[in-house]
Amino acid sequence: MANLVVGQSGGPSGVINSSLAGVFVRAKERGFDKIYGMRNGIQGLLFERLVDLKEIIDKSYEVELLKKTPAAFLGSCRFKLPEIDEARGTYERIFEILDKRDIKAFIYIGGNDSMDTIRKLSDYGKMVGSDIRFIGAPKTIDNDLAETDHTPGYGSAAKYIATSIKECILDEIVYSTKKTIYIMEIMGRNAGWLTAAAALSRGEDCDGPDAIYLPEVDFDLEKFRNKVAALLQKKNNVMIAVSEGIHLADGTFVCEMSREDVAVDAFGHKQMGGTAAFLAAYCEKEFGVKTRPIELSTLQRCAAHISSYTDVQEAFSSGAKAVEACCDGRTGLMTTLVREQNEPYVCNVGLCDVHNVSNVERCVPHEWITDDGSNVSDEFIAYARPLILGENLPVMINGLPAHLVLQKEVDELESRNNPQE
Amino acid sequence: MANLVVGQSGGPSGVINSSLAGVFVRAKERGFDKIYGMRNGIQGLLFERLVDLKEIIDKSYEVELLKKTPAAFLGSCRFKLPEIDEARGTYERIFEILDKRDIKAFIYIGGNDSMDTIRKLSDYGKMVGSDIRFIGAPKTIDNDLAETDHTPGYGSAAKYIATSIKECILDEIVYSTKKTIYIMEIMGRNAGWLTAAAALSRGEDCDGPDAIYLPEVDFDLEKFRNKVAALLQKKNNVMIAVSEGIHLADGTFVCEMSREDVAVDAFGHKQMGGTAAFLAAYCEKEFGVKTRPIELSTLQRCAAHISSYTDVQEAFSSGAKAVEACCDGRTGLMTTLVREQNEPYVCNVGLCDVHNVSNVERCVPHEWITDDGSNVSDEFIAYARPLILGENLPVMINGLPAHLVLQKEVDELESRNNPQE
Repeated sequence: MANLVVGQSGGPSGVINSSLAGVFVRAKERGFDKIYGMRNGIQGLLFERLVDLKEIIDKSYEVELLKKTPAAFLGSCRFKLPEIDEARGTYERIFEILDKRDIKAFIYIGGNDSMDTIRKLSDYGKMVGSDIRFIGAPKTIDNDLAETDHTPGYGSAAKYIATSIKECILDEIVYSTKKTIYIMEIMGRNAGWLTAAAALSRGEDCDGPDAIYLPEVDFDLEKFRNKVAALLQKKNNVMIAVSEGIHLADGTFVCEMSREDVAVDAFGHKQMGGTAAFLAAYCEKEFGVKTRPIELSTLQRCAAHISSYTDVQEAFSSGAKAVEACCDGRTGLMTTLVREQNEPYVCNVGLCDVHNVSNVERCVPHEWITDDGSNVSDEFIAYARPLILGENLPVMINGLPAHLVLQKEVDELESRNNPQE
Repeated sequence: MANLVVGQSGGPSGVINSSLAGVFVRAKERGFDKIYGMRNGIQGLLFERLVDLKEIIDKSYEVELLKKTPAAFLGSCRFKLPEIDEARGTYERIFEILDKRDIKAFIYIGGNDSMDTIRKLSDYGKMVGSDIRFIGAPKTIDNDLAETDHTPGYGSAAKYIATSIKECILDEIVYSTKKTIYIMEIMGRNAGWLTAAAALSRGEDCDGPDAIYLPEVDFDLEKFRNKVAALLQKKNNVMIAVSEGIHLADGTFVCEMSREDVAVDAFGHKQMGGTAAFLAAYCEKEFGVKTRPIELSTLQRCAAHISSYTDVQEAFSSGAKAVEACCDGRTGLMTTLVREQNEPYVCNVGLCDVHNVSNVERCVPHEWITDDGSNVSDEFIAYARPLILGENLPVMINGLPAHLVLQKEVDELESRNNPQE
């Protein structure tokens, strides 16, 4: 049988490697001869930086370890393919490389830009009458892809965020006799799914954040001030979750407000991030209470140690489905997650036309945001809760989660193939 | 039999509640009648804000949940008792409250300041011929207390830090074709134990941070620059761990360098933290590569979801031992952890004179820091490794770690005792 190639692209996530594992396992089952991995996505492919995954992942425990390893095993890239008309040579080069290696299936795991790559390559393939199949498998912690109920990667990031906010609320209330404001900044430039996940911490043992601000709603500093003032009347310890992308009605990002006023550094650079830092400084001035800005930063996209089993399994199935689609002769599609029912949660894997996905951004529906724009509704909770359920416990070695690392495997393979005397 | 009171003080940790559980369980076993908890430490005691822990923790699963709940169940305070000569009235008041409630055992779980409280109260008790016993149980993620091999709380924070840095290194290397510098800022004003724990990530699947800077060694910006330049020659993705407390030879904190040059905010406040932010901005200017500062912030002291079983058990034993010491008629002591051997690791709980602990700060020994001051030795690893071993898995409810929360228990108790018609 022919060969398959798989790549990963865009930002890291806790479960993108589980999708890779799904591709690998199903491709082996379906009898693909070589299963190539692109190093650093399409960029690596262009330089023929390919690894033979059957050689690299040659033990069954390595597949399990791969499913528990965050970030992108094969390495990633941020590379937008030019339009076909603009750069035919690039497309010819890619297809030449694929043909030379007898690759008939091309699977790309990633977010919006990656689906754009699948769209262009499958379009080009149809144009030139190629029999190579191009299928995308979605991956993004941001949960902002169209046509799918949710994206692999979101559930695990949401679980980490909700856990961290729950723990930080406990941290804050130890000084319950003093007034404090903690402000947690969460990723999400245009879509507030991750920040909304902070609300999952609400439960019998936790009240959750007192306010949640998403980029889907214009931010109003005066309304924010009044909200916080009212909260401080009622309670001593206030916890607020904000998306890094919140912005005023005129489009100014809150983090830019901080940049203008505050934070050109010693070298003239504008400060990175800073939404929480700005609001914390603002609250400290307005209310004279102790504030603490917390940025979850990269941790939220790579904390596989507390990933969601549901998410890991769906990511795996999504990768496996991409292989099936290739075997069925389909092309230009993305695998989707299709929620059949919510209680009990049943989710199938489907397929959609990648043209409907690339360059579309799906945001939190306005009906799931409370009227005053400072929280999310129970509908959101009902939507998101199943996605964080179940534990995918790490393999602990020497007290720490163990990972499968490509370069280490490549080095080992090379020393095995070229033993020193 | 008589009554016992227990309090918690200082910053939160992942296992201070396990020490509380140890006190509670052993005090029950030893037949104390009432087991009081001070709300917000000695400050709460002065206002007689006490809870009856037998009423609050009345189910055995609640003890287990308490051991898995981060921060301070009873609430905390930062309150330094005045010297005896300066404020006799305060001491008289405290002993009056204790005598009134027939409290014969006083246990305080905390760090340096808390041990200072035990020292003063036991000194006063001896002065006035009181039969109340005062024993301290150590707690600090900082690991900076004298007379004990290590402190409960350190192992779990170290485990979280090493896990996070391992995951962030994977996050960083996905763009292995681009040069990047990640700088992770870790707690520790004067003692570098927590930052040193980043080195625990070194292993078969991870090279660990490329450089580690502790406050025990004067920081030299020029040497730092040369180190980073050399690293960028050898590899694309550089990870550096820094303690928030690193400072120049003249005593200037690195975060103050950023404060002077950069970060007076819109309201004239100096920026919080910022060691990593300053160094990241510096590196970006010097080397023109993408940098990312990451502050672990409060997460490192409250992330009980990945706490160390060894740490949790030792914290529990330490609390239990404090009760034993009271029953044996001892006073003015702190429980200690005594490492009997390292492989296999055996650790007993001992006692020491609290006078030798309060107001002493124990730092990382210089012989465990490499000669160029930018890493730690294998001796440190051998010391710290056993402390992070073993898993204390959270009880997961609705996809998130469940916690025992005092105010919720108090509210429940009140509604049980005063049922509405």
